Amino acid sequence: MPALPKLLDIGVRPDDAAHHEARRRLAQLTKPPGSLGRLEDLLVRLCAIQGTCPPSLRDPVIFTLAGDHGVVAQGVSAYPQVVTAQMVENFLNGGAAVNALARHAGARVVVADLGVAAALPQHSALRRCKVGPGTQDMTRGPAMTRAEALHAIEAGIALVEDERARGADLIGTGEMGIGNTTAASALVAALTGASAESVTGLGTGVDEDGRRRKVEAVRRALEVNGPDPADPLDTLAKLGGFEIAGLVGVILAGAVHRLPVVLDGFIAGAAALVAARLKPDIRGALIAAHRSSEPGHARVLDDLGLEPYLDLEMRLGEGTGAALCIGLARAACAVFTEMATFKSAGVSDRADPPGASA
Amino acid sequence: MPALPKLLDIGVRPDDAAHHEARRRLAQLTKPPGSLGRLEDLLVRLCAIQGTCPPSLRDPVIFTLAGDHGVVAQGVSAYPQVVTAQMVENFLNGGAAVNALARHAGARVVVADLGVAAALPQHSALRRCKVGPGTQDMTRGPAMTRAEALHAIEAGIALVEDERARGADLIGTGEMGIGNTTAASALVAALTGASAESVTGLGTGVDEDGRRRKVEAVRRALEVNGPDPADPLDTLAKLGGFEIAGLVGVILAGAVHRLPVVLDGFIAGAAALVAARLKPDIRGALIAAHRSSEPGHARVLDDLGLEPYLDLEMRLGEGTGAALCIGLARAACAVFTEMATFKSAGVSDRADPPGASA
Repeated sequence: MPALPKLLDIGVRPDDAAHHEARRRLAQLTKPPGSLGRLEDLLVRLCAIQGTCPPSLRDPVIFTLAGDHGVVAQGVSAYPQVVTAQMVENFLNGGAAVNALARHAGARVVVADLGVAAALPQHSALRRCKVGPGTQDMTRGPAMTRAEALHAIEAGIALVEDERARGADLIGTGEMGIGNTTAASALVAALTGASAESVTGLGTGVDEDGRRRKVEAVRRALEVNGPDPADPLDTLAKLGGFEIAGLVGVILAGAVHRLPVVLDGFIAGAAALVAARLKPDIRGALIAAHRSSEPGHARVLDDLGLEPYLDLEMRLGEGTGAALCIGLARAACAVFTEMATFKSAGVSDRADPPGASA
Repeated sequence: MPALPKLLDIGVRPDDAAHHEARRRLAQLTKPPGSLGRLEDLLVRLCAIQGTCPPSLRDPVIFTLAGDHGVVAQGVSAYPQVVTAQMVENFLNGGAAVNALARHAGARVVVADLGVAAALPQHSALRRCKVGPGTQDMTRGPAMTRAEALHAIEAGIALVEDERARGADLIGTGEMGIGNTTAASALVAALTGASAESVTGLGTGVDEDGRRRKVEAVRRALEVNGPDPADPLDTLAKLGGFEIAGLVGVILAGAVHRLPVVLDGFIAGAAALVAARLKPDIRGALIAAHRSSEPGHARVLDDLGLEPYLDLEMRLGEGTGAALCIGLARAACAVFTEMATFKSAGVSDRADPPGASA
């Protein structure tokens, strides 16, 4: 029994009562109103999404989903395809950037194979959800069938529902897939109408020739497949990837279950775009961790109406930006739960009659 | 025997060997070169400033210096002057925003009275360096004498040298002083030639009338005192404050002793401007934590050639931005020390012969 149709039927909206309670409590803390800027905004959003005040941040989980891409045959990446599988092993051994940053932020990393081309080693922590051994080359036809895309979405939903049952109270998105910035560029171009040129960047670090090959691959994929932007599943299947489709499921499930969804960068943004086309009311549950240096990311953020919290010129993916933003969320919670109030600390508020001076 | 003349004589420059070693090690980690953007830049800067690789972040200390300002008589603040003393007590009791954020970042807060107008309660943690009971009203004459400004600078130097002896390996700047955004605006206008209007903002949250009073106070202070911008001590004495002068000492001592100096926001920036006029080669040791929403801060950052790491529309001071940036620095160190290398993880680097695809 597929979970997606049920999720699409559940309304999602931020909780006004928790939102107001958060604002009310923030106003009592010993600091000028609003002086912590977007840290306060982040706190209020966490409360509104979860429907609780203070928010719960006991068990944030970053989902790092991996998949391979047939489009790498077009020479669109600076790295060989085998790196996807090698990096999955690195994630499982705790040696990648997302592991270090997640440990620092007190978040768990759940690593899942949605469609890596190579066989992966035995590892008890690996979530095995392989839909296929990498997608087809989207410049020659659809990357996935519609059934495969749905299968990957369902897998993403199941991952979130499992972790939620274990206690996850906030989720971050992450991914690994050599070639996946090209797939994300194609998705963003198709869904927003932007030109291939304007949403295609250097990915892991191709040179200008490599970027031209990426732009050309995106153009051909759009031409060959003729995706229907009014049909987000069609577009996802033709241009996406297994890990991107998995993230669509992760994002939808997180939002519907009132878990704040901390989006990483460009690939996660492309997945969120698909998710928001399928179910626009999830947008209130999305938190943009950072502004990626991929040029297509700005287009995604505009489309989703999101303003990122960090802008550190990062372009690594894996969930690294999400991990840093979870650290910020924890900082916001520390302020909220540990600070004294004007009353408890005996500090004069601006409303008080002025003392020695005004 | 004053410490300042000695400090001014010691050359400071980033360590090239540590810089290169940091870049070399970063290139070996399992991620595309440069893909962690400014987090890598921050890491390299910490190494170059300290002259060690990896950098040391065992004991970061935020110096939160407090002082009162005679200019509050001109109605430039939304809060009564007594709040400075009340907030010092709040800092000592651990209830302010900087306390919560510093705890979160694993940093200590050192609270010092450089010139609070009110008597402060006994507290073993309070560093008593009071130079005077608040400055004079700078719209009627110099805020401090030159001797007072020097005294406060010496106190700041002593605070850093004490904490360095206790193990401090990175310092953050913080401050508290009702009225001190007006003093900082006057300093920035005098030292950079910017108009009072362009560098004066809402501070803790005055209304438009309040802002007009601030601009007018800055203009009058410049007119009445005629500070000599070529003489940074003269300018500091006439327009600054005890806590700002203390921070000048903190910044100079930190930089000369090769402790990375994480500047908080606008007030810290004004102090750094004075410090850099006294000793231009300290600029390489300065790290701008965040971009404050005070309009004068952009001018300060431009002048010092600094690009902040965070932009969260914060305007609280105390060291709150510095605390968040120390958290980022810790994240950068986690990446640097915990990540696997291409070799140790058996991951193919881009230089390797391509595998299945390119």
